[in-house]
Amino acid sequence: MRYPNGKKFEETPAVVTKHHDTSRRGMTLENDINRSNSHYLSEHVANIHKKPTPVTIVNVSYPSRNKAKITEAYFKIPSTTDYNGIYRSRYIDFEAKECKSRTAFPFSSIHKHQIEHLKDVMMHGAIAFVIIRMNYYDTDYLIKAEDLISYYNETERRSLPYDWIKEKGHVIKRSYLIPVDYIKVIDEVYFRR
Amino acid sequence: MRYPNGKKFEETPAVVTKHHDTSRRGMTLENDINRSNSHYLSEHVANIHKKPTPVTIVNVSYPSRNKAKITEAYFKIPSTTDYNGIYRSRYIDFEAKECKSRTAFPFSSIHKHQIEHLKDVMMHGAIAFVIIRMNYYDTDYLIKAEDLISYYNETERRSLPYDWIKEKGHVIKRSYLIPVDYIKVIDEVYFRR
Repeated sequence: MRYPNGKKFEETPAVVTKHHDTSRRGMTLENDINRSNSHYLSEHVANIHKKPTPVTIVNVSYPSRNKAKITEAYFKIPSTTDYNGIYRSRYIDFEAKECKSRTAFPFSSIHKHQIEHLKDVMMHGAIAFVIIRMNYYDTDYLIKAEDLISYYNETERRSLPYDWIKEKGHVIKRSYLIPVDYIKVIDEVYFRR
Repeated sequence: MRYPNGKKFEETPAVVTKHHDTSRRGMTLENDINRSNSHYLSEHVANIHKKPTPVTIVNVSYPSRNKAKITEAYFKIPSTTDYNGIYRSRYIDFEAKECKSRTAFPFSSIHKHQIEHLKDVMMHGAIAFVIIRMNYYDTDYLIKAEDLISYYNETERRSLPYDWIKEKGHVIKRSYLIPVDYIKVIDEVYFRR
């Protein structure tokens, strides 16, 4: 399945339940973050969720009396980021992207209004960032929205160079229970624990 | 369109664009809150959005090369509340419901895990509440999650009596630009402005 912009679509709940093994085969960043969020939720660490995929519903039929079946719908371009919630009384807001390139992360993979959204929630006092998985290096980075946006505004380039990501980004550690332990990075970067 | 639980489904964007007149005919609470949120967003007052309706996507076809058409999907029962965001550096989280009864608001109109969710985000330091529109009285109330939950836990009843809503709830004023001005109530109730 593909978004209008060609981005691959994964139906998370279905996929997640398929992967109870420790193998990382077929695991996506989204699944890993959802599993991390489930852990944070059940351990009362944080309450952060992925927003549902926005769709425009055109047609619904009623094959059985109480079951509505959507027979025509289309993907909508999201107007906000995919993830938000609360941690240590702070509003958390972020977007997560995988990057197949080994040299740079193309700005085209983040919608312009998602960057506007990150800027706006930042103004309101949010902890805002992006998580980028560099697939080739199998490494996840947390990049503060401040850093991303200032580079985005200054540069002529259409991508974040890998060297910049290594310099400005914060490596996110992984454990089996918490595949993308970004809360630990938030503690270090935003709370100076 | 109906949710599995029989709750009426409204496709907001479509409906919203239909109502540019001042008449309140056909306006739903959801449309009014979305319009209020758009105003808060454009005036840089707050950044609060309704989450997309959660659906499970089963089948997608590709009638044209870059357009994905969802041909089979089903409504999912939401695991969180419908609205969240940030205001004055605080995480905001709420559910909004219309009530046709003139005597009480049935607990059955809020999913149990949505109440659990409100309790959980409250623990993490959120400003959490529900907005109830009493259709018969054409009045919107903001009810703090604290009040809702303590009553919910103590009572044997299966609904919030209208008298309780009048006593504990905070009336939300309406203007043309801001049909449900709940931010003003948040200022009074949570910030003691």
